[in-house]
Amino acid sequence: MSHSPLVQSLIQSLCCLPGVGPKSAQRMALQILEKKRDAGLELAESLIQAIEKVGHCAQCRTLTEQAICDICASMQRDSTLLCVVENPMDVSAIEQSGEYRGKYFVLLGHLSPLDGIGPEQVGIPTLIDLVARSDIEEVILATSTTVEGEATAYYLSEHLASHEVTVSRIAYGVPLGGELEYVDGGTIARALSGRGKFR
Amino acid sequence: MSHSPLVQSLIQSLCCLPGVGPKSAQRMALQILEKKRDAGLELAESLIQAIEKVGHCAQCRTLTEQAICDICASMQRDSTLLCVVENPMDVSAIEQSGEYRGKYFVLLGHLSPLDGIGPEQVGIPTLIDLVARSDIEEVILATSTTVEGEATAYYLSEHLASHEVTVSRIAYGVPLGGELEYVDGGTIARALSGRGKFR
Repeated sequence: MSHSPLVQSLIQSLCCLPGVGPKSAQRMALQILEKKRDAGLELAESLIQAIEKVGHCAQCRTLTEQAICDICASMQRDSTLLCVVENPMDVSAIEQSGEYRGKYFVLLGHLSPLDGIGPEQVGIPTLIDLVARSDIEEVILATSTTVEGEATAYYLSEHLASHEVTVSRIAYGVPLGGELEYVDGGTIARALSGRGKFR
Repeated sequence: MSHSPLVQSLIQSLCCLPGVGPKSAQRMALQILEKKRDAGLELAESLIQAIEKVGHCAQCRTLTEQAICDICASMQRDSTLLCVVENPMDVSAIEQSGEYRGKYFVLLGHLSPLDGIGPEQVGIPTLIDLVARSDIEEVILATSTTVEGEATAYYLSEHLASHEVTVSRIAYGVPLGGELEYVDGGTIARALSGRGKFR
């Protein structure tokens, strides 16, 4: 290789980032070393701080450095509503919509028996327990609309049936601004079967 | 924001990387914290090591933690050939072609008077000095084929004219495997005017 050992090892370490291949890692490494040494040191510091201190919220399992995350600790949130999502990014996406004022439960994955990921691994016992001992009235299943997300939602609905809560699923349909000709057949079929009355 | 402060500051620091926006930074941060804490710490360590120790080769100006880089120090390389490139990635690209056995000079940029980047900033006096006092017979100008790269090559050829060296420029033309219908007009024009005898 034509790079010196330290530059080479920086390039290799950058490849651990999702979506970063050898070419972009090389570009990142050289740009940091050429122009952004301060930002690079800051990044190293942020990485160390976050990796050492960030754990999971004891209640909803999202990533946080506190024992209980801000949303769980907030008195302003509606504690009768619980939205079940697959990962912390989903929480962030739903928060950005500004539509939801309830609380969350983060599975940190989805059921995938072939990969050895069962109910225990995605915290389902904790979730069932939470539903049983709190004042939750509705559980919104917002797992992704993939096969695994569907299976996880189905499993959850089965196990929540014996509890006195409404279990709902986010709506399927054509996305806003979506032109029908670019929407896949499966989505259109669900949009048709799930049609509602106009006005 | 729905992320905790440490997660948020990690996301912000990741945005310093070229080509990384808020969405991919978020995905990177959460993936590191969920699944790749060891790799994340390794990345932090590589960043600190490289930023603290990597400087520039005293001879060719490429990035290296040694005083003189491996290529400059090598006795196997042809010291009568000098290839002038814009940045260390170009050295790496040329090395990968396996075609070149001479030495390099890295400008670390290109002339750009409007941005205050003159001959001094891209090390042209050092380059002229190097050519004057060494046994270099040919200087290959391999700056990029952009307007700035061209201008830099032109400036260099003017200032090397008074020295006893051959000054050459890498060839323009259609890239290998390039289909003519997808090649831009400027490139085709250069490929035509620079045509060579067949066999």
